[in-house]
Amino acid sequence: MSRAASTAFKVLISHPNVPTPALELLRSRGAETIVCQSVPPSREEILKKVPGVDAIYWAHYQPLNAGILDAAGPQLRCVSTMSSGIDYVDVPEFKLRQIPLGHTPGVVKNSVADLAIGLMIAAGRHFHAGRTEIERSQWKTEQINWMMGQEIRDSVIGFFGFGGISQAIAKRLQSWDVAKILYHTRTRKENDGDFKAEHVSFETLLKESDFLVVAAPLTNETRDKFNAQAFGQMKKSSVFVNVARGGLVNQPDLHEALTSGRIFAAGLDVTTPEPLPADNPLLKLPNCVILPHMGTQTMKTTIEMSLLAANNILNAMEGKPMIRPAY
Amino acid sequence: MSRAASTAFKVLISHPNVPTPALELLRSRGAETIVCQSVPPSREEILKKVPGVDAIYWAHYQPLNAGILDAAGPQLRCVSTMSSGIDYVDVPEFKLRQIPLGHTPGVVKNSVADLAIGLMIAAGRHFHAGRTEIERSQWKTEQINWMMGQEIRDSVIGFFGFGGISQAIAKRLQSWDVAKILYHTRTRKENDGDFKAEHVSFETLLKESDFLVVAAPLTNETRDKFNAQAFGQMKKSSVFVNVARGGLVNQPDLHEALTSGRIFAAGLDVTTPEPLPADNPLLKLPNCVILPHMGTQTMKTTIEMSLLAANNILNAMEGKPMIRPAY
Repeated sequence: MSRAASTAFKVLISHPNVPTPALELLRSRGAETIVCQSVPPSREEILKKVPGVDAIYWAHYQPLNAGILDAAGPQLRCVSTMSSGIDYVDVPEFKLRQIPLGHTPGVVKNSVADLAIGLMIAAGRHFHAGRTEIERSQWKTEQINWMMGQEIRDSVIGFFGFGGISQAIAKRLQSWDVAKILYHTRTRKENDGDFKAEHVSFETLLKESDFLVVAAPLTNETRDKFNAQAFGQMKKSSVFVNVARGGLVNQPDLHEALTSGRIFAAGLDVTTPEPLPADNPLLKLPNCVILPHMGTQTMKTTIEMSLLAANNILNAMEGKPMIRPAY
Repeated sequence: MSRAASTAFKVLISHPNVPTPALELLRSRGAETIVCQSVPPSREEILKKVPGVDAIYWAHYQPLNAGILDAAGPQLRCVSTMSSGIDYVDVPEFKLRQIPLGHTPGVVKNSVADLAIGLMIAAGRHFHAGRTEIERSQWKTEQINWMMGQEIRDSVIGFFGFGGISQAIAKRLQSWDVAKILYHTRTRKENDGDFKAEHVSFETLLKESDFLVVAAPLTNETRDKFNAQAFGQMKKSSVFVNVARGGLVNQPDLHEALTSGRIFAAGLDVTTPEPLPADNPLLKLPNCVILPHMGTQTMKTTIEMSLLAANNILNAMEGKPMIRPAY
């Protein structure tokens, strides 16, 4: 172990629910952990406790900017978030000050992939409508074609984006006897053969997918990508799933596609805005399954994210590159 | 083609929603199809139209017994249901009269397997509670441990029963990096190695499973098998899924296990009774996902069931054994 790692150093932890294994790891490597207690986190408490720390473990989604860095002081050596997306971080400010910044992408893929397949099935098989019919005493099992849903077997699975999450889904579907796996990205992925996946145009993805899964970053290029024009090219029997960001979808256009029967069903872990107001019209549709953005919410993945954030900090304290630097 | 098949014969179809491909198949092989029009099916209409037919295609779940066979007349040569379970059929009466009876097991496995995995994820990842929180404007995403669910990766998957449905689920989970697959049946299955599955005692199944899936017939031996004593041996983090029959579960005991935190969550496609009354206490639980018995409800599987029923009849009309005889 290097000298730096065995020397005591102070780490501010911005949230009291950071999993114990990450705190224990930091402490076992010489860290004194200063844990903020407020939920939701209080900027006031953070500003009071951050002066003089060597590292910051940022475990929530409030702005991480010059104000925090100034309050910490010039001895601050590194920061890691406990999240994949870092839209709440002023990254240019970190670059300017040359302060290493880490985050935790990659490890989220497994829990999001499970949830995405759950949404494909829940939307394709009428889980929401089915429950609603029980609550309304409207069972119609005497009708052979009641609640008829879409099966994954023999269907074309399409991915918009083919990063870690899409690949984790494709991996899970290898023994489901799907017809084929398509994906659209700007450039073909070299490892797509591992998943028997085929790179196609956006138009082909829309036209051929039976299940279309969105798992791509929100950028100026992808914003509102799924609008009336896109839904208009999809199959009437298709199931649309979004586990990325609500902003990739034009929500009124999705509502129209679902009510008009332009597409069969949708499963959404993400919406615009979040929290979604309880009177949002999507919540009235029988063919729309909606979750409150909880794709990463499993203990296993949360612990992996927390350990990765801790290791980002430990590496930086030893003068090594972070495992997942954010810039 | 044999002479028998090219000779015209009459088939009563008990329900107007039998998929077209099955009707077309029967007609292409010389059948005159007499299709009942009532929904729900009317016994009166059936008794009026059945006299003189050569075959009966029974596509609903009302009693199929001596009354129908008597009304048809002595020229009746065969009957097939369009269902896997045949608890509504007086099988001894068929045996007595030596009338071939067919049904449609096996083909249901794919659609039920998809639904079962959907239930594992929906229950393990709080799909019902998550939606409810949106409807109540109760998002708490600032809490790291909000809606923390169970992941399938690295978990022990246990099956009670290891027939076609369980095996179809096990096949689908081959690339999910599960820790192991266990099953309990009276005797070890010879093909369990195909699914890397291990035959264990009922007690071991209860104690070790992270996800426990029930997919076994309801018999005097299996009735109420999942009761307080069984739930008491399961892990507190376990997810219980039933896609078989409600009668295998003691429902008040399941309710108690879910409210006390004795188990983590449940996903049910089947209940006691069906339809489940809208005021059933299970419908009040955040950790219970419930569906109105729709495991086989996909167009693909329904068509496969309908074609199998048609082929059972065609075989019998040609004097050959049915593909899936019921006795």
